[in-house]
Amino acid sequence: MDHYYALIMAGGSGTRLWPLSRQKTPKQALRLAGERTMFQMAVDRLRPLFAPERILVITRADYADILAQQTPEIPAANFILEPEGRGTAPAIGLAALHIQQRDPAAVMAVITADHFIAQGQAFCQALRAAYQAAAQGYLVTLGIQPSFPSMGFGYIQQGNLLAELEGNRVYTLARFVEKPALDAAQQMLAQGGYAWNSGMFVWQVGQIMAEFQRQMPRFYAQLCEIQPALGLAEYDQVLADTWPGVAKQTIDYGVMEGAASAAVIPVDIGWADIGSWASLSEVLPPDEHGNLVRGEHLAIDTRGTIVFGGRRLIATIGLQDLIIVDTEDALLVCAKEREQDVREVVRLLAANGKQEWL
Amino acid sequence: MDHYYALIMAGGSGTRLWPLSRQKTPKQALRLAGERTMFQMAVDRLRPLFAPERILVITRADYADILAQQTPEIPAANFILEPEGRGTAPAIGLAALHIQQRDPAAVMAVITADHFIAQGQAFCQALRAAYQAAAQGYLVTLGIQPSFPSMGFGYIQQGNLLAELEGNRVYTLARFVEKPALDAAQQMLAQGGYAWNSGMFVWQVGQIMAEFQRQMPRFYAQLCEIQPALGLAEYDQVLADTWPGVAKQTIDYGVMEGAASAAVIPVDIGWADIGSWASLSEVLPPDEHGNLVRGEHLAIDTRGTIVFGGRRLIATIGLQDLIIVDTEDALLVCAKEREQDVREVVRLLAANGKQEWL
Repeated sequence: MDHYYALIMAGGSGTRLWPLSRQKTPKQALRLAGERTMFQMAVDRLRPLFAPERILVITRADYADILAQQTPEIPAANFILEPEGRGTAPAIGLAALHIQQRDPAAVMAVITADHFIAQGQAFCQALRAAYQAAAQGYLVTLGIQPSFPSMGFGYIQQGNLLAELEGNRVYTLARFVEKPALDAAQQMLAQGGYAWNSGMFVWQVGQIMAEFQRQMPRFYAQLCEIQPALGLAEYDQVLADTWPGVAKQTIDYGVMEGAASAAVIPVDIGWADIGSWASLSEVLPPDEHGNLVRGEHLAIDTRGTIVFGGRRLIATIGLQDLIIVDTEDALLVCAKEREQDVREVVRLLAANGKQEWL
Repeated sequence: MDHYYALIMAGGSGTRLWPLSRQKTPKQALRLAGERTMFQMAVDRLRPLFAPERILVITRADYADILAQQTPEIPAANFILEPEGRGTAPAIGLAALHIQQRDPAAVMAVITADHFIAQGQAFCQALRAAYQAAAQGYLVTLGIQPSFPSMGFGYIQQGNLLAELEGNRVYTLARFVEKPALDAAQQMLAQGGYAWNSGMFVWQVGQIMAEFQRQMPRFYAQLCEIQPALGLAEYDQVLADTWPGVAKQTIDYGVMEGAASAAVIPVDIGWADIGSWASLSEVLPPDEHGNLVRGEHLAIDTRGTIVFGGRRLIATIGLQDLIIVDTEDALLVCAKEREQDVREVVRLLAANGKQEWL
């Protein structure tokens, strides 16, 4: 474990969870299930494996304060700030630069902060396997064993079995599949050997840097401009000067699809992507009427409804399949089938200059 | 006009308007349409006819403060307080006792505070006619010309034409009809000569006292016990001792049905009974999507919905025929067709000791 580090990606916004998610309180800073925020749960999940000093966070500058307050155990120097989001590849590259500076022999995991993972122990076990495979020279991705033919995730096809480590099977990564149509998704599930792309990876920091150099040479050159300023007073200025010229790219397209020795570990860890209000039902158990309730609720003939409140009493009468989210200054009432349009509310608020509700 | 007085009945609660109506802020104290409360509008409506000194109010002791604050122009002595509600007959009787004390020759109107009246001028004109008919010795009731076969109101059948006064026709009152079934209501509308019972009356105070003596002798005796204490320090105590023994009764059953010389003036004054949320649409114009909105509202595909908010933003997506009422400490989301069950929410809150939301 001497060279093991974990990087938590905490730069997302989560507009479909408005009015709870806001510009100043993004999805990962929210208490969606229980008392801990998603970011806190991401840290908690890593603690069986790491001291807080080995956990780094990359996020947007404007999220740094709220996230740092939520995890006082993580040293302030471990928060790496992007001037603005440029996609997962630049975020990971910048963080890798910092980790490499600390330990050129580092093996780093990339962990998401906006997913739920019910089975923490299985997650840790899979991470252990991934670190070992990465130490052997693989760019390892964690694949989620699919439970239904989702059209919302990318897929990863596994190739040959490489090893069995810590009770997990490690396969060569055969190919990436973009978000599929329903029939293609159904076919992959029927065929087997496919997993959802979770956005979680483990690799040697030297190896991912080599891949940036080979596959994203322009970005690698930009990292090389930043590198000499690491730890110096001029770092912020150099970063601010360099970052606007960095092209947007995802780690999947930019690196993983063309990687020389990629591996996948299919995992069954109770993973769930809580991207929108209705998906909360994947992690919280509904009551006997199919309602999912937080806060003080008085229900008369209410079914299949999400009632996410705070201190206010919410009384509902004769409702079916609605989403009700009540916050201090804004209220959402939405038909469940229209939940994707919550994003449209945020767009309209921005377009109309309603800054106080963004 | 020398002997003319008006009594505003302001003792109702209006539980079907929860969460806006509360124990401490009953329906008549609410701003349901515009800037004035229903009670203030009731007073405003009388001002073309009366100085504030001639306007009396009967209400429950616990409503007195909020109502008095809303109408500083009405002398404090004009607020007559019932220890607790006993129906309209005792309320009117107690107020009549006070008015008779001031002026034994008074002619008093009984005016409701929880109805809307769009045409104030027509209302004043009808009141003028009613005072004149009352001065001639009739117990006059204002009947509302029915616009649809309502099953929610009692009806009054008019008899012979007595007079035409101030552009209003005055008829003998043939009979009262209790809230009818639909076919009976339809028949009355088709037949003509029926009006809704508005609960508004005009009579000589001496004459209504004589009716109490004749038709409700026990109550009249109780009024006689209270009478000597009027204006004295012991009044409150005498009232508190007497009132619990007063039987509940409505003025319709207790007096009007058996009255010797009752008359009815059918009026067309834009009257509406805002008893529940959906009935608000009778007095407020909906927007082009059939929505009725107060407060800050962002709508995506929302139709036929009442959005009654305060300072909070309310965003709605994909809704049809709902009622959303947002207050500082409680929120109601209710299917329009279930609006009568708002009363059930209040019952459940009371049953569960949730005093803070009553």
